[in-house]
Amino acid sequence: MTSQHETNEAPFRHRFVVNDPRIAYLDGNSLGRLPQATKDRIQQVVSQEWGEDLIGSWNRSWLPIAKRIGDKIASLIGASPGEVMVCDSTSINLYKAAWALLQRRGNRKTIVTDAANFPTDLYILDGLRQQLGSDLRLEPLVLDQSDHSQVNRALADAINDDTALVCLSHVNYKTGYAFDLPGVTELAHGKEAPILWDLSHSVGAIPLDLGNAQVDAAVGCTYKYLNGGPGAPAFIMIRGDLIRELSNPIPGWFGAANPFQFGAIYEPASGIERFAIGTPPILSLAAIEPGVDLTCEAGMMMLRQRGWGLMQQFFQLYDERLQSLGFRLETPRHQDSAGSHVSLSHKDAWQITQDLIHTYRVVPDFRGPDIIRFGITPLYTLASEVEQAAFAMEASVTQGTFRSHPKQARGVT
Amino acid sequence: MTSQHETNEAPFRHRFVVNDPRIAYLDGNSLGRLPQATKDRIQQVVSQEWGEDLIGSWNRSWLPIAKRIGDKIASLIGASPGEVMVCDSTSINLYKAAWALLQRRGNRKTIVTDAANFPTDLYILDGLRQQLGSDLRLEPLVLDQSDHSQVNRALADAINDDTALVCLSHVNYKTGYAFDLPGVTELAHGKEAPILWDLSHSVGAIPLDLGNAQVDAAVGCTYKYLNGGPGAPAFIMIRGDLIRELSNPIPGWFGAANPFQFGAIYEPASGIERFAIGTPPILSLAAIEPGVDLTCEAGMMMLRQRGWGLMQQFFQLYDERLQSLGFRLETPRHQDSAGSHVSLSHKDAWQITQDLIHTYRVVPDFRGPDIIRFGITPLYTLASEVEQAAFAMEASVTQGTFRSHPKQARGVT
Repeated sequence: MTSQHETNEAPFRHRFVVNDPRIAYLDGNSLGRLPQATKDRIQQVVSQEWGEDLIGSWNRSWLPIAKRIGDKIASLIGASPGEVMVCDSTSINLYKAAWALLQRRGNRKTIVTDAANFPTDLYILDGLRQQLGSDLRLEPLVLDQSDHSQVNRALADAINDDTALVCLSHVNYKTGYAFDLPGVTELAHGKEAPILWDLSHSVGAIPLDLGNAQVDAAVGCTYKYLNGGPGAPAFIMIRGDLIRELSNPIPGWFGAANPFQFGAIYEPASGIERFAIGTPPILSLAAIEPGVDLTCEAGMMMLRQRGWGLMQQFFQLYDERLQSLGFRLETPRHQDSAGSHVSLSHKDAWQITQDLIHTYRVVPDFRGPDIIRFGITPLYTLASEVEQAAFAMEASVTQGTFRSHPKQARGVT
Repeated sequence: MTSQHETNEAPFRHRFVVNDPRIAYLDGNSLGRLPQATKDRIQQVVSQEWGEDLIGSWNRSWLPIAKRIGDKIASLIGASPGEVMVCDSTSINLYKAAWALLQRRGNRKTIVTDAANFPTDLYILDGLRQQLGSDLRLEPLVLDQSDHSQVNRALADAINDDTALVCLSHVNYKTGYAFDLPGVTELAHGKEAPILWDLSHSVGAIPLDLGNAQVDAAVGCTYKYLNGGPGAPAFIMIRGDLIRELSNPIPGWFGAANPFQFGAIYEPASGIERFAIGTPPILSLAAIEPGVDLTCEAGMMMLRQRGWGLMQQFFQLYDERLQSLGFRLETPRHQDSAGSHVSLSHKDAWQITQDLIHTYRVVPDFRGPDIIRFGITPLYTLASEVEQAAFAMEASVTQGTFRSHPKQARGVT
C-alpha cells in the first residue's frame, strides 16, 4: 500500500500498519500507530511465552523488560542507563516522583506549575498538596505561552526560596508550546528547587538532553510518539545521584531489593527499580519495545528535522488558506518553543472536527472549547496528510459542510 | 491433544492452550494458563482495534472494558454490579483502598493484619502507617493457621475500639489457609472497624459472598485462577454505600467524572470509576476477559467442587506416600479453611522443586525457606497431574534424584 514516493519521504512508514492510506491520521500524539514488528512480538509473548512456557517466562523473558526498555528510552531523552524504568501509568509515576521530591521540601511550601497543564498533572499535584499537609500551596501560573522570554520571566518571578517543587509538562497538550527545558530547569536549580518534567508530548518527537540539563525527575507516556500501544505503561526517570535519596510512596514487592525472597520487611531496590510497585502488565509492557526500537533506529535528530519540516508546511498552509477563514494558529512558530503538533482554534471547531473525520477522512483531536489538534509523528506522517488536513479544513468552511454535523452536545468530546 | 477422558474429567481444559500434556502444570495459582479465546481476542485488539481503527477504538471498544470485566468479577465474588473495577496492580489497589478507609479512622490507631500476609500487603500497610502519621501502628499477628476457632479467637482479641483497619489475605499465599471471611468480617464490624480483603488466592477458586458478609473493600489478582495473563491488571471492590464516602489518594484523570472534558479541577466519578487513575493498559486489560468469562460459565460451585476433590486426592496421596518421607502438609484439610493450593514443607524443598521441574516435568512453586506449593486450578487441573506430582516427589526422595540439583543459592528463588 505504500508507494515509492512515501517510502522516500517517510523512510519508516512501511514499518507501521497503514490499513487505509486514504485516511490522514494526525492523531499519533494521542495514540501512535501499530508497528509491524509489534504484531509478531505480541504473538510471541501470548502464544509462546505465556501459552507454552508459562511461569518459566518470568525469569527467561519478562523480568528484564521494564528496565531494558527504560534504558532505551533513556537514550532518547539524554538520560543515563539505569535512570529510567517503565511501569504503571504517567499519572501514577507523577504521583510517585512528586511525592518523593516533596519529602525533601524542608520548610518550602509552594508547588509551581502551569495552570494550562494536562489535567491529570494538576489533579495529582493538588491531591499531594492536600495529603502532605495544610501548609503546602499549589501555584498554577497563567502563562502567555507564545515565547520563552515571557514564560521564563513569569517563572523566574514565581520560583523562589519557598518553592518546594516545579512541575511542568514540557510540551503543552493543547497549544503545543514547548517550555525551555534547560532554561527553566536552571531557574529552578538557581533557587535550589527540584524540577519534575512530564515529557508525554515530547518524548519521541523532540530531542531531549535531561542529563545535560541535570533534570531531577521526569515521567512520560509511551503510547503517543513512541507507538507503544493503547494505555501502554509509562516511564519514570530519576537522576542517578538522587535515586537512593528518594523513596516510593507505594512500596510494593516489585520495588523491593529481592521481590522473590518474600521478606516481611520492605528493603527498596538500590536502583531505579525501587520506583516499581506491583507485577507489570506484560502484554502491554512488551508491546512497547518495537516502537521504541524504531525511534532509536531513526534517531531523534532525523525525526525532529522531518517533523519540523511538516510543521512548517502546516504553518504555511495555514497562512495561505486558513487564517482568513476564522482559524487561529495557537502553536508557536519557533522550533525551540514548539512541540510536534499544530493546534488551530476556530469558533466551530467541534463541528469542523466531526466534518474532517466523517467527510474528509482526516483524523485530528478536538480539545475543548475550540481547538483542533493535529499530531505530526515524524516516523510516519506524510506531507500529503498535512496537505489533506489543510485542504479539508478549507473545504469544510468554504463549502459549509461542517454545518451538517450537530453542535457539540454537553459533556461529549 | 486432549483425550476424551480428560474432557470428561475437566470439562473446560480444552478451552485452554495445553502445549505439552506430559507436563503437570500445578502453578496456575501463580500464572494461569492461556485460554484459547484469549489468543483471538488479543489478535483482534492488536490488529483490528489498534492497527486499523486506531483512536476510534477508545469510544467504540476500550472505555467500557474495565467496568464490564469488573461487573463479571463482581458476580464471582458476590459483589453487586458497579462495585468492582479492573485497574492498576493489586499493590496499588491495596494502597488506594487502605488509604481511603484509613481517612475515616478518627482516633483509632491500629492496623491489624497477619504477620504471614503476602509481603507486598505488609509493605503497603507499613508504608501507609509511616505516611499517615506517627500515631498509627501496624499490628501483624502471628496466627496458628490450622483452624478457624484459634485464628478467630486471636483476631477477636486483637480487634478492638482502637482498630482503624483490618487487612487480611483471604487465602494465605504460602500455607493455603483460608480465613473465615464472613466470621472475621463480623468480628471487625462488631468493633466498627472496616475490613479490606485481598482475594488474590481465592477469586476464581472459591465461592465468595462479599455482599452477604458486607465486606467494606477488597482487592485481588486476575492472573492466577482467573487466567488473565502475566501481570494483568488487578481489581478493586468497594461496597456500594461506601463508594461516595471514599476518595482516591491518586486522583488521576481516569477517575474523574468527565475525563475527556479536561477540566482543571478534579471532580471524582460518582461510581467505582473514581478508583481508576490513568489510562489503562488495553492489551493486558482486554486479555483478562476470556478467562473471566470461562470462570463465569463454569460457575464457582462446580469449580470448588472439582477443586476440592483434587485437593482431597492430594491429601490422600500425601498420607499414603509422602508423610513418611519427610514431607509435612502445611495446608488445612478442612474445606472451609483451605484455599485451592497444597503446600508441603520439606527440608530439601528447594532441590526437590528443581528435581520435579527438570526430572519429572512437574511444575510447582518454591516458597522459602522450605515450602513446595501446588496450585489446583479446577478449570484445567487433572487428577493425573496431581498423581504425577505426588509420585514424582516420592521418587525424587526415595531414589534421591533431588540430590543431583544444587542447593539453593543465596537470593535465588
